[in-house]
Amino acid sequence: MIKELALGIDIGGTNIVCGLVDKKGNLIAEGSCSMADFDTPEEMMVSISEKFHEMKSNLKTNQKIVGIGIGAPNGNFFNGCIENAPNLKWKGKIPLVKLFKKNFKLPVYLTNDANAAALGEMIYGGAKKMKDFIVITIGTGLGSGIVANGKLIYGHDGLAGELGHTIYQPGGRKCGCGRLGCLETYVSSSGLIKTTKELLEKNNTKSLLRKLKPNEIISINIQAAAIKGDKLAINAYEITGAILGQKLADAVAVTSPEAIFLFGGISRSGNLLIKPAKKALEENLLSVYKNKVKILQSELLDKNAAVLGAAAMVWCEK
Amino acid sequence: MIKELALGIDIGGTNIVCGLVDKKGNLIAEGSCSMADFDTPEEMMVSISEKFHEMKSNLKTNQKIVGIGIGAPNGNFFNGCIENAPNLKWKGKIPLVKLFKKNFKLPVYLTNDANAAALGEMIYGGAKKMKDFIVITIGTGLGSGIVANGKLIYGHDGLAGELGHTIYQPGGRKCGCGRLGCLETYVSSSGLIKTTKELLEKNNTKSLLRKLKPNEIISINIQAAAIKGDKLAINAYEITGAILGQKLADAVAVTSPEAIFLFGGISRSGNLLIKPAKKALEENLLSVYKNKVKILQSELLDKNAAVLGAAAMVWCEK
Repeated sequence: MIKELALGIDIGGTNIVCGLVDKKGNLIAEGSCSMADFDTPEEMMVSISEKFHEMKSNLKTNQKIVGIGIGAPNGNFFNGCIENAPNLKWKGKIPLVKLFKKNFKLPVYLTNDANAAALGEMIYGGAKKMKDFIVITIGTGLGSGIVANGKLIYGHDGLAGELGHTIYQPGGRKCGCGRLGCLETYVSSSGLIKTTKELLEKNNTKSLLRKLKPNEIISINIQAAAIKGDKLAINAYEITGAILGQKLADAVAVTSPEAIFLFGGISRSGNLLIKPAKKALEENLLSVYKNKVKILQSELLDKNAAVLGAAAMVWCEK
Repeated sequence: MIKELALGIDIGGTNIVCGLVDKKGNLIAEGSCSMADFDTPEEMMVSISEKFHEMKSNLKTNQKIVGIGIGAPNGNFFNGCIENAPNLKWKGKIPLVKLFKKNFKLPVYLTNDANAAALGEMIYGGAKKMKDFIVITIGTGLGSGIVANGKLIYGHDGLAGELGHTIYQPGGRKCGCGRLGCLETYVSSSGLIKTTKELLEKNNTKSLLRKLKPNEIISINIQAAAIKGDKLAINAYEITGAILGQKLADAVAVTSPEAIFLFGGISRSGNLLIKPAKKALEENLLSVYKNKVKILQSELLDKNAAVLGAAAMVWCEK
């Protein structure tokens, strides 16, 4: 029997990682290259093409690659372009799917990293049996992928699911998007750092973090301090989690999901973030939703989730 | 050829209206009764049953009733129950679909009024060719029905789409739901009245409304004053529209709709509300969504929209 495989490609600001994935989420082969090596998307294509053919030549006779899924910042599912991604060195609108289709005679799908994470959770992770859920990816920023009626919401323009850019605090922190008070300026690794620094400045609470230089106040050190019981660091997580929970209560009122999965960087801190988020969620939920919505850690946290998510698109769209 | 018809029933706090609707939205027959006449849902059922058989006996031989759709406050699509509707005299959980199925050997569907309005817009109104849109119903409160990927979002529990209960102002106006600062305490007929009264108290601007008694400050009079150019009344609409636009910008970041339709009471005031809402929407949108999303008046405003919406469910679910 033919075993179908999908090539998942995760394009990030620093690296490009790809892998051949089967329907069960097994990684059959993988590879990566550095973004620094490519001045143009076409140069990247040559390198990916080499990797692809190398992987292909090693396949068993009953294995067959049936499609390519790509996760990339600002990847638009509908037009197949990366659109003005601030973290990539290629500027403007890049017709990535067109480029890939020219090189590979296969179906090619593109979306952004958070949407890919949601599809990965649905096909390979904790949302396997769910039809309505949200995945929140917390890294430098806050991304989200929203599934309703068993389908990812791309929206009319392919760019739905920007919970990180709903307003938490009108007139609040300046966001990279040019507006003020976006959720991701509070709930993200950079938001956590900012909150921690504000706490350090605002009061004289003893803290392990006072021994660090300003550029050493980064999430990994804040987390380490919090795990050691540092009150200020714990407080920074509590504030961040409470803001997340409060805004998730609004998101629940829109799509009423079964669960919300947290993925990425600071969500690895487990209960430090999840506990205050759950508390604030329940406090802020409309009564009909109370005690119904789970906040869970992504089940793909320790796997090559970005590649799995990109590959998942192939099974969702086929 | 058999002409299929759906029975649409709109259950409200005061009246129950029903009608036979064809696929094109033509109302073939209609009827209504007063909620005051029924102490129990079973009593209502007897009356609706009589109306149903009367309508049926008048049908042409090629007309056939194929399903029943019901729109009711707090109507849950999944379990077929009205759940603790504050505006109905029947309290608790009423298994309405079960009751109807016992009386009529037909498929029966139930949802809330705002979801029904969204389905009505999709099948009969301005959203006929749209796959992603939102309908906002503005009456005493603010309801919403959200369609993504061509499907209404019911959510995991059948109760999705409560944009009226997302928080506009933490710690703000007290909402009927028991929380503070919900959008519907600002954007609704009661919100408009409150804003107007606050403006009247806060400053000494001349206003036609000062001639009215407090209980005469109602939306219809505020609208009449605004149409006459009354600055205070216009200002009340501007504030209300601006809050609506600001929160719609958040909603766009979730589902990225093609259009947002406004329906009901104060949305009839046309540009008084829509113009400031559009302005605030554009000002608050993330740049990728700017100049893409239309705010439109519902195309069912002058029709029996509640009955059409309820009937639309039959065509969506069949």
